Amino acid sequence: MFRKLMKLEEAKKVIDENFKPAQLGDEDVALLEAYNRVLKEDIVSQMDVPSFDRSTVDGYAVKAEDTFNADENQPMTLIVSGMTFAGEQPRMVLSKGEAVEIVTGAPLPEGADAVVMVEDTERMDDQLQVYTAVTPKMNVMQRGSDIKSGETVLHAGQVLGASEIGALAALGLTKTRCFKPPMVAVLSIGSEVIEPGKLLPAGKIFDINAYSLSTAVIECGAKPIFFGVVPDDKASLSKTLTAALASADVVITSGGVSVGSRDYTPQIVDSLGKPGVVVYGVAVKPGKPTTVAFAQDKPLFSLPGNPAAALLMFYLLVRPVIQRLCCRAPSDMRSIKAFAGVKLFSAKGRRTFVVVRLVLDVEKCRLIAEPVAGASGAITSLTGADGFVEVMENQQYINKDEEVSVKLFRSV
Amino acid sequence: MFRKLMKLEEAKKVIDENFKPAQLGDEDVALLEAYNRVLKEDIVSQMDVPSFDRSTVDGYAVKAEDTFNADENQPMTLIVSGMTFAGEQPRMVLSKGEAVEIVTGAPLPEGADAVVMVEDTERMDDQLQVYTAVTPKMNVMQRGSDIKSGETVLHAGQVLGASEIGALAALGLTKTRCFKPPMVAVLSIGSEVIEPGKLLPAGKIFDINAYSLSTAVIECGAKPIFFGVVPDDKASLSKTLTAALASADVVITSGGVSVGSRDYTPQIVDSLGKPGVVVYGVAVKPGKPTTVAFAQDKPLFSLPGNPAAALLMFYLLVRPVIQRLCCRAPSDMRSIKAFAGVKLFSAKGRRTFVVVRLVLDVEKCRLIAEPVAGASGAITSLTGADGFVEVMENQQYINKDEEVSVKLFRSV
Repeated sequence: MFRKLMKLEEAKKVIDENFKPAQLGDEDVALLEAYNRVLKEDIVSQMDVPSFDRSTVDGYAVKAEDTFNADENQPMTLIVSGMTFAGEQPRMVLSKGEAVEIVTGAPLPEGADAVVMVEDTERMDDQLQVYTAVTPKMNVMQRGSDIKSGETVLHAGQVLGASEIGALAALGLTKTRCFKPPMVAVLSIGSEVIEPGKLLPAGKIFDINAYSLSTAVIECGAKPIFFGVVPDDKASLSKTLTAALASADVVITSGGVSVGSRDYTPQIVDSLGKPGVVVYGVAVKPGKPTTVAFAQDKPLFSLPGNPAAALLMFYLLVRPVIQRLCCRAPSDMRSIKAFAGVKLFSAKGRRTFVVVRLVLDVEKCRLIAEPVAGASGAITSLTGADGFVEVMENQQYINKDEEVSVKLFRSV
Repeated sequence: MFRKLMKLEEAKKVIDENFKPAQLGDEDVALLEAYNRVLKEDIVSQMDVPSFDRSTVDGYAVKAEDTFNADENQPMTLIVSGMTFAGEQPRMVLSKGEAVEIVTGAPLPEGADAVVMVEDTERMDDQLQVYTAVTPKMNVMQRGSDIKSGETVLHAGQVLGASEIGALAALGLTKTRCFKPPMVAVLSIGSEVIEPGKLLPAGKIFDINAYSLSTAVIECGAKPIFFGVVPDDKASLSKTLTAALASADVVITSGGVSVGSRDYTPQIVDSLGKPGVVVYGVAVKPGKPTTVAFAQDKPLFSLPGNPAAALLMFYLLVRPVIQRLCCRAPSDMRSIKAFAGVKLFSAKGRRTFVVVRLVLDVEKCRLIAEPVAGASGAITSLTGADGFVEVMENQQYINKDEEVSVKLFRSV
């Protein structure tokens, strides 16, 4: 295999062209557990909501025309002929010249078409003085005004939040059909990497990437299958990758992609199925040795071992694929305008991502993008960071104080 | 009790003054389950990460000074005296004039202080031609350069995302101490309200608010205790509210706060403890009948029954309280600039919230805030909405095409 660096956009295009998202399974989810899940099918209402004309105030149900001549100085007098209660269908029929006491949420009695607010009336026994005119439908929430029978209330692919789940409850539903979240296998490669929780032998480091990437998978609304650290020999790696591919919709490895003699990952990944490796290195910094393959129509991302690079490449290349698989609109990273705090340099010929922290310049009332301190690739370089600035391939540097767009790691 | 409307800011201030956030309990959480949890204590590293000088490239470990005179035309010749492997502590000591083969991630042998990339060398048996000069520390990730022993890596109160969980793994941790999420009791009041999943009798509506508000609670990182619909009589309500207060850190009711004869909620809430009701009506539209009380140092929010109003008041008044309780930075709602699509009117003397959808005006390349169609208070008026525009108390209207700030319900 020949390592030919692709530009970032080219890599994205090749991934898009090769990616045929599998149809995810689906399952019934109880409403109270459906937050952030993706709806499998359109929800068409079988009923009107509300299913009757409701009062939106406390007051008196009337025939609007009986009040047309009322005003503050010349009240109209109506006869109170009864009372309705919330939750009970009134049995009376309102006649001309009559009013029925009503509370918020109660159904209007037959014959009534409006409600006068209690504040606009004065009552003495069954005599009601009405000090204001109301028009038909006033202070009434009409049958079907929230949802009409036959109306499509929610659409397949919608992500369920508070108001969507409220709308499902309004229809009397207690559960709803959602896509199963995609399964994403996450594994770390490298003889120098060991599982946290063990004693650290000389020359080894604790695994970071399986944890940070699994968390990033959860953040996308998918489910990680945590494989942890895989021994860096051809047989183990091949066996684990085959198992990962069989059990997951997407496979993410990190480490084992440099040109070192022990790095078999790209070769093994390429052998798992057609078309095999489609992206073999990306002209970015950090993240250059990223490899992308497809086998059995599933994408396999081999990210660098460098924790900051692995997470950046996840956000840039992997997240959009998981979002497509979830049937979520693949949202670009949110960005925010800021000003470069120092001169930001690019790596020769490569798109360069400078990880930054946003600092408020109180005097000038603007945001400054300050590159975070710390060794390149250090996981701690990301913990204090808000996002990154891109320096383009053909750009030597971004000047101090130049306006930049900061792509944010997460929405605050 | 006298219903005296407060301005929104006054209501917020009164809530802040009365709110003494209880210390939440804490628990150990496995790293892979810690996404979006809040750290209980500072994390101070007991170790250097990495714990040895590592090569960041494949190549040859050298003494930098041995290469100072090397360039493309005049390579320096070194003797390859051995090989190191990732994950193994090398036993050799590098002497002047020697080089040791090294892979990415492997520890530098004693005596070496830099690494020459394999691309910048040519090897014949044990003879190595070095075509470039390297400076000390070049291509080396130094011991402790990610995390130094004694360094505070994360702070109490930080919300754990991918990079924070990666940093915890880097320290060899498998679990971490987090605050328990606050418990929020959610209940709906109203004789006209019944649980979804049942048959709908005439005059009744399905409960919406317990579902939408419980979901909004989950969205804040807290845990809802779902009480569903509570019968609208004084005894049941008093008993349930007492139980809710005992089991939760915050209580949210909706409905039962209009002036109707059956609405006992404010009285009962006031009787549960001192200081009782502190906000009795807010000068906003929708949301006016909102009541806030404190008892046993816990806040009780009585929101309107109108689903859109209940959810809006949740975002405006309840969410900041839950965030403070979670020890999360109480983030104001994110807002975005747009232009009014039509004239937006205010209710006389009340802060008015106009629920809007954002539409892209492609021609002028700007966002338009369009009021959503639908009955006032309809839950479906929120399902298609992006946020709301505030029309201030002293403002009669916002003109079409005027610039507005749209407060977003959620980050997209």
